[in-house]
Amino acid sequence: MRLRTVRTDDGGTRAEIHRGARWSPTDAPDVGVLLATPDWRSTADATTHPTSPTGSAPVVTTPAKIVCCGHNYRAHIAEMGRAAPQFPTLFAKFADTLTAWDADITLPGAAESALLDWEAELAIVVGDVLSRADRETALSAIAGYTVANDFSVRAWQRRTPQWLQGKAFDATTPLGPELVTPDEADPAAGLRISCRVNGVEEQVGSTDDLVFDPATLLSYISGFTVLRPGDVVLTGTPGGVGIAADPPRFLRPGDVVETEIEGIGLLRNRITASHTEITGR
Amino acid sequence: MRLRTVRTDDGGTRAEIHRGARWSPTDAPDVGVLLATPDWRSTADATTHPTSPTGSAPVVTTPAKIVCCGHNYRAHIAEMGRAAPQFPTLFAKFADTLTAWDADITLPGAAESALLDWEAELAIVVGDVLSRADRETALSAIAGYTVANDFSVRAWQRRTPQWLQGKAFDATTPLGPELVTPDEADPAAGLRISCRVNGVEEQVGSTDDLVFDPATLLSYISGFTVLRPGDVVLTGTPGGVGIAADPPRFLRPGDVVETEIEGIGLLRNRITASHTEITGR
Repeated sequence: MRLRTVRTDDGGTRAEIHRGARWSPTDAPDVGVLLATPDWRSTADATTHPTSPTGSAPVVTTPAKIVCCGHNYRAHIAEMGRAAPQFPTLFAKFADTLTAWDADITLPGAAESALLDWEAELAIVVGDVLSRADRETALSAIAGYTVANDFSVRAWQRRTPQWLQGKAFDATTPLGPELVTPDEADPAAGLRISCRVNGVEEQVGSTDDLVFDPATLLSYISGFTVLRPGDVVLTGTPGGVGIAADPPRFLRPGDVVETEIEGIGLLRNRITASHTEITGR
Repeated sequence: MRLRTVRTDDGGTRAEIHRGARWSPTDAPDVGVLLATPDWRSTADATTHPTSPTGSAPVVTTPAKIVCCGHNYRAHIAEMGRAAPQFPTLFAKFADTLTAWDADITLPGAAESALLDWEAELAIVVGDVLSRADRETALSAIAGYTVANDFSVRAWQRRTPQWLQGKAFDATTPLGPELVTPDEADPAAGLRISCRVNGVEEQVGSTDDLVFDPATLLSYISGFTVLRPGDVVLTGTPGGVGIAADPPRFLRPGDVVETEIEGIGLLRNRITASHTEITGR
């Protein structure tokens, strides 16, 4: 089963369920709210939303919690010159950090000073309440998977020991296009994850190269904070990021970044210059 | 002016305003929602909430964004053996991390393995929308100040390079008891901030020892993410944390921690063993 969130002509958003080869509207404003609805799988088509889709939105628009794991693909850990970790390295993003699968990503300031980099990631969407859950319970609470790119402003990320400020620029993490339920996509089976910049494949990996797999991550996170339906966990990026290249390479206005996970989906984001940069304000 | 959030006998929460020597109820469920209400200063007493206060709650119960600054008091930076920073070191907490000013703080597991430490902090509550704001604009958008203790599970904080997992245990950051508006409390004037454990003063500092003052922090954060009414910024802790002692000292069940900022308020939190530890489950 596939779920998505669309923008509607009344200025809001709406969750949709793919049924019988078409997208059916629901009464939920986004997939996160839909997942928190009991028996959402059997929910009837919405009757109260005669709105039409006008554009795309993040699969979950306002998660209360976004937890991200760094250093999680063995190949990426190797390229960054680190040892395999004993514990997952975790940081947070905000709901404001998310954007649509096809949205432009605006460079904060000049490309030379921002050092904007790509990070293709498998994202987990939580479907049940999890607190101090074991791995098996966590696995059964996964609502589904989607695609993210953890675009990182390396200049800010490297200013201090904590990454948040380089990882939480508003509207820089596309999430989508759809949530795919676990019966249709199994990361443990080894799904190809890749990132192309202007058509050139920069990152490629397999979702079975994760040090901490989705169930292990949810279980670990639930050891310190409760997870709820609609919460999002990003699982880290494979090898091939720009900062690890020799010499390092970063994104520029006009670049097009495609992020793809086999059987789950494709993001396509164009990098644009900031208004500030253009006008000199 | 002072604002607070109380628990009510209907199981919810409610914001109250201190007027004419008594606390007046409002229609807002917490101070964050109250601050997002236009003309909240002149709002009439609630007529739709005939509920009675039954307990305390965090001043803001569900902020969309909690941003925390580490390494911000010159004295604490010195005790940790670091150089004065050029940029604020920032990390996030979740709304679930917050708890009431008088709540018990539950040790996650055995005291010996958790290494629970104290961190007295001045907290800022945002009162207006801020995006790429200059320092002056940021200063005028401060709704007020309150007291926090960034209780830190050092064992988890030190597992990886990113602090989140040691800083975001559910219900470990008391925030309160009241928001005090800037006309009544000015951190730049040098307010005494202190932390006592079982009556012994462990931390003491002055809010004019901040490397990045409240307006500078809000301005800096608004450079990458929008701040909105009810968002919370923690400004860092002064010298005297347990992990910096020789030998290091950590909290144990039964300890009582008092966190105080002159003219703003006092937190009083008792450390309790976790149910898991007691029952052995």
